[in-house]
Amino acid sequence: MLKCVLILILIFVFFLACSKPDITMLQVKSPDGTLSLTFRLQEGAPTYEVARFNQPVIKTSRLGFIFKPADSFNFFKIVRSANTSFDGTWTQVWGEKKEIRNNYNELRVDLREIVKPRRKMILVFRLFDDGLGFRYEFPEQRNLTEFDIMDELTEFTLADDATAWWIPAYEWNRYEYLYQSNTTSELDTVHTPVTFETTDGLFMSIHEAALTDYSSMTLKNSGGTTLKADLVPWSDGIRVKAKTPMVTPWRTIQIADDAGGLITSYLILNLNEPNKIEDTSWIQPGKYIGIWWEMHLNTATWGSGPNHGATTENTKHYIDFAAKYGFDGVLVEGWNVGWDGDWTAEGDKFQFTIPYPDFDIDEVTRYAKRKGVRLIGHHETGAAVLNYEKQLQDAFQYYQDLGVRVVKTGYVGNDPSIKRIDENGQEQWEWHHGQFMVRHYRKVVEEAAKHKIMIDAHEPIKDTGIRRTYPNMMTREGARGQEYNAWDPDGGNPPEHETILPFTRLLAGPMDFTPGIFDLLYEEVRPNNRVNTTLAKQLALYVVLYSPLHMAADLPENYEANPEPFRFILDVPTDWNDTKVLHARIGDYITIARQDRNSDDWYLGSLTDENGRNLQAALSFLEPNQQYVAEVYRDGIDADWQTNPYAIDITEMLVDHNASLTLRLAPGGGQAIRFRKATLKDVNRLTVK
Amino acid sequence: MLKCVLILILIFVFFLACSKPDITMLQVKSPDGTLSLTFRLQEGAPTYEVARFNQPVIKTSRLGFIFKPADSFNFFKIVRSANTSFDGTWTQVWGEKKEIRNNYNELRVDLREIVKPRRKMILVFRLFDDGLGFRYEFPEQRNLTEFDIMDELTEFTLADDATAWWIPAYEWNRYEYLYQSNTTSELDTVHTPVTFETTDGLFMSIHEAALTDYSSMTLKNSGGTTLKADLVPWSDGIRVKAKTPMVTPWRTIQIADDAGGLITSYLILNLNEPNKIEDTSWIQPGKYIGIWWEMHLNTATWGSGPNHGATTENTKHYIDFAAKYGFDGVLVEGWNVGWDGDWTAEGDKFQFTIPYPDFDIDEVTRYAKRKGVRLIGHHETGAAVLNYEKQLQDAFQYYQDLGVRVVKTGYVGNDPSIKRIDENGQEQWEWHHGQFMVRHYRKVVEEAAKHKIMIDAHEPIKDTGIRRTYPNMMTREGARGQEYNAWDPDGGNPPEHETILPFTRLLAGPMDFTPGIFDLLYEEVRPNNRVNTTLAKQLALYVVLYSPLHMAADLPENYEANPEPFRFILDVPTDWNDTKVLHARIGDYITIARQDRNSDDWYLGSLTDENGRNLQAALSFLEPNQQYVAEVYRDGIDADWQTNPYAIDITEMLVDHNASLTLRLAPGGGQAIRFRKATLKDVNRLTVK
Repeated sequence: MLKCVLILILIFVFFLACSKPDITMLQVKSPDGTLSLTFRLQEGAPTYEVARFNQPVIKTSRLGFIFKPADSFNFFKIVRSANTSFDGTWTQVWGEKKEIRNNYNELRVDLREIVKPRRKMILVFRLFDDGLGFRYEFPEQRNLTEFDIMDELTEFTLADDATAWWIPAYEWNRYEYLYQSNTTSELDTVHTPVTFETTDGLFMSIHEAALTDYSSMTLKNSGGTTLKADLVPWSDGIRVKAKTPMVTPWRTIQIADDAGGLITSYLILNLNEPNKIEDTSWIQPGKYIGIWWEMHLNTATWGSGPNHGATTENTKHYIDFAAKYGFDGVLVEGWNVGWDGDWTAEGDKFQFTIPYPDFDIDEVTRYAKRKGVRLIGHHETGAAVLNYEKQLQDAFQYYQDLGVRVVKTGYVGNDPSIKRIDENGQEQWEWHHGQFMVRHYRKVVEEAAKHKIMIDAHEPIKDTGIRRTYPNMMTREGARGQEYNAWDPDGGNPPEHETILPFTRLLAGPMDFTPGIFDLLYEEVRPNNRVNTTLAKQLALYVVLYSPLHMAADLPENYEANPEPFRFILDVPTDWNDTKVLHARIGDYITIARQDRNSDDWYLGSLTDENGRNLQAALSFLEPNQQYVAEVYRDGIDADWQTNPYAIDITEMLVDHNASLTLRLAPGGGQAIRFRKATLKDVNRLTVK
Repeated sequence: MLKCVLILILIFVFFLACSKPDITMLQVKSPDGTLSLTFRLQEGAPTYEVARFNQPVIKTSRLGFIFKPADSFNFFKIVRSANTSFDGTWTQVWGEKKEIRNNYNELRVDLREIVKPRRKMILVFRLFDDGLGFRYEFPEQRNLTEFDIMDELTEFTLADDATAWWIPAYEWNRYEYLYQSNTTSELDTVHTPVTFETTDGLFMSIHEAALTDYSSMTLKNSGGTTLKADLVPWSDGIRVKAKTPMVTPWRTIQIADDAGGLITSYLILNLNEPNKIEDTSWIQPGKYIGIWWEMHLNTATWGSGPNHGATTENTKHYIDFAAKYGFDGVLVEGWNVGWDGDWTAEGDKFQFTIPYPDFDIDEVTRYAKRKGVRLIGHHETGAAVLNYEKQLQDAFQYYQDLGVRVVKTGYVGNDPSIKRIDENGQEQWEWHHGQFMVRHYRKVVEEAAKHKIMIDAHEPIKDTGIRRTYPNMMTREGARGQEYNAWDPDGGNPPEHETILPFTRLLAGPMDFTPGIFDLLYEEVRPNNRVNTTLAKQLALYVVLYSPLHMAADLPENYEANPEPFRFILDVPTDWNDTKVLHARIGDYITIARQDRNSDDWYLGSLTDENGRNLQAALSFLEPNQQYVAEVYRDGIDADWQTNPYAIDITEMLVDHNASLTLRLAPGGGQAIRFRKATLKDVNRLTVK
């Protein structure tokens, strides 16, 4: 009898493995045929592989799940499959490019368990010419309703031991690390986006799209060049608490022949749901200033006391400055009760509707309104999310009543630091990046939308493109920003930092980096710190690091003292019609040109690491047969971030789209250019020279 | 007494080292200030270092010599120094760019030995914005007349352990190696040009210019990242036999922020002497065919016999083909007596004025003349240089009388294989790359010039830019050419080979690679070999690999069978007005656009290694406000060098300089495009579609 069963099993396996290869292997190609994906069931277990020009880039990699308790959801047959195509163009409410083409071929594979309980799962693959996305769908079904995911088996086995730019996962510091580079096989566990350069010069980035009610995917090396999904767990060890019908986030792989191609890939946005906000008239990109840098410099405090930054008087001073120069908003941090004491440990004390006594919020908002400026709100939670959620509706209503349109949120706290009360009434401590917090960040965005409030999230969940669905989710931190230059004990961001961000963190979406520090050396207040760039590079950051909300982060007096370079900050927009990457070498240099969405202007930003460079920039992006005035902000001839950071050369020249400019970037330097159409007066004035 | 002397010496050294730092340190900067060079005497020994944007690229490196016998010429004082500038433009007789700007700042340092015999040496440094050159000069002087150089101490200590692309020196095979890449510290002894990519993305190439009567410089790793000049010795161990007044070749370092910048650097030409040939009307770039590939395929022989290639009849067949398609010349190899037996060992049997009986050279040249075609001469020496030199004048006179304008020379023989008779009447065996052969190759070029003959040297001495001085020195081999695809036991040139050559060998000067094989698979005759490219890549080589003389290397019948792709070979010129590098990644891919010197046409060639690529090419090099017809020769959609090499898609389209083309390169593929100005008829025809 046993023999018979064994033979039967063998016949069955043989049947699976050999006699039906046709129906266990499915393929889909990208629209131009560059990329192809092969889906296979290997003894019932789903796998995929990806080729580019018929050569493997992702070798056979597992898919599937382990459910609780030790319920491997991994033995399927294909019920049906469908290949479909889509090509359309949609308009961003705001962004780095106005019109986005969404063009893919899709393979949809309906799977059902071979044995009982015969649960169903659908795998959806979308192949774009610049990469791919895939996700799991769990349709409504009798035998799968509520369930726990203990592990997602998704693998990415790179065909090459590519160089990876990465930051560590499961550390306390909420993505705020310097990027490191190693070969893929040397990685441990990393956050996404993680970006790769293969030995053959192919660039890839693995990330996810549409993370809405799931855990963040980190990637753990599971041997060789295989990176396996490692979902950030709840405190009880469960990775995801799910209920059918549901879909996972998209797992994404962007692929390009040059590093710049990753930046101009919009597949993560394309994989998110369309805009859900009908009236978007209140969603407006812009620039802001604020009571912020002085706290980082330690010359003012968030909490109450003699050096309290958020006073009525100080705020009015900033409002005057904003009004004079046309900034849209004034951020005020430390305005509300809760900052005194150890607020990172005692976040429950934060009150989001109670200002400090020396901050007359009614007077301030009235004054601002008269001047045509708006207050930018601030919700620091100290990572006390339950306290914040309790007040959430009131907090936004309060700000909405005061005319506030943007709120910056904050979640400072060392991971895992998010207090949750579980089903048994017990305190649990959650990670910033688990499903609990994914839900929270989503809730905040939705609540804000109800109150016509835009969000700028600091210590955020990573960006996965939900700005397409909720375009009030403007920008966020989620990387080492400018603030590290104020107080980092290791000396701040090295010059290469901003030449890595565009190819890693910024692939996820906009970043509130807070550029524009003009007083680069502040030895009186922070003797061990300084900004590790030239002045011109601070300007270039406004173009290179995309954000719909950009701060002019320095103190008003430092701008007043430098009106000429300040001009560029006043001119540069934060909403673009188009984006072109002119030079791209990860960790070394980058040049980006962007076209203003609301004028004929183009802007160019170029920056380098600690090495000086001469880069040739062809201006072919400019409109033909049209002279432009190039307003050039470049490093002075002897500029050097270490020895001579302030040397800046501001000049005008006539150019057209046949011109090629040599961008001379000093060590640690940069260059910013505004191109505006030349008037006859400009032509006369600049030709005479 | 001894004590006193010691103290005196100490005082003296102190005096040198400390009290006169001003006159032992000299500096020069490049015209735009990017590069700077510091010359220093360190205890009398000359050194230099190079910085770019004030950061070291060449750290302190030695200069100087050891004379025979063990006479260290290395203890100097500075007599005087001078800083001068030069800026001028000169016109190439032919080349990759017509007008060459020569713009440098020069530092000239006159040195004299501190102690007797107080010999003099001058060091000259020229700093260009794209690199530098320096050389030693030995003026006429009483205490230095004839002398032997036992060692040149010149060092290049790279500031970074850069990746180097290199071929080995002191091997038998005359530069015919696949390039390898290693870190600088891993190198042993390498030929120049050797090309570097630093970890910070700086590109450098070390080579020499104007090697006219000296030994070739190879580079030997002498610890860490220090590469030391290792001059190829004579058989007696002497490196250079010299006589004042004399100058060494220039040691050159080209430096660019991208790999393409090395290709468009002309400093090696700028460091050569101007053209010495007054009437250059007879020096004409062009394309040729020839009786050649059939010998490599083993279907014909160089020597006499039933399959002798160089017969009157076969040559007439080639002449007919050349006349029909407008080729300038027909190369005939194996035409003269000496090929029978082991000619690589018995080169003394070669007769350069005696054709084989079945080759009626008078009839052939008469026939050719009538058809408007010229015979291209061939001098294979079998490395028997003395035999060749004896006949040199007669050999060139013979060809000149027959109307021959181009002679291809050959020096097949395993190194050190050059027989020389020394002062004692003894046979000695010299390297291809020593001073003996440098003199020989120079002698041939000069003798050829007297007879109005252009030279295409195979198994040559490396190119160091003397084509500027003797523009009849047209092109040469000096690397693995196409022929390796016919018979290399290791399978020929891999797909990446041609993506490395432009950044290494071709930096020295033109190469007679002999592209254009259309019958890529010839299993009947060479079952273990094939051409490792697609068909379209063979076309792209004509643009990417510059040579003023380019061969259409395949058999006439293979061209007649493929008239459409053959069109490109017929159209593409070999003399250019300008050259632009659009994409450059060493060992991965390259795209070059070149402007025809004799028409308004532009040509583009792009090629990749074994990986497929989509490269974006902006056509901003085209003349504005002008429509062009792009005649595109690209890989077919499923082309692949391994599985489908013949798939080619030939198409026309209207473009202008605002256009951007996606160059889709198959694995091992390429793309070639001719851009010609569109006529009204073209516009109508191509717009209708």
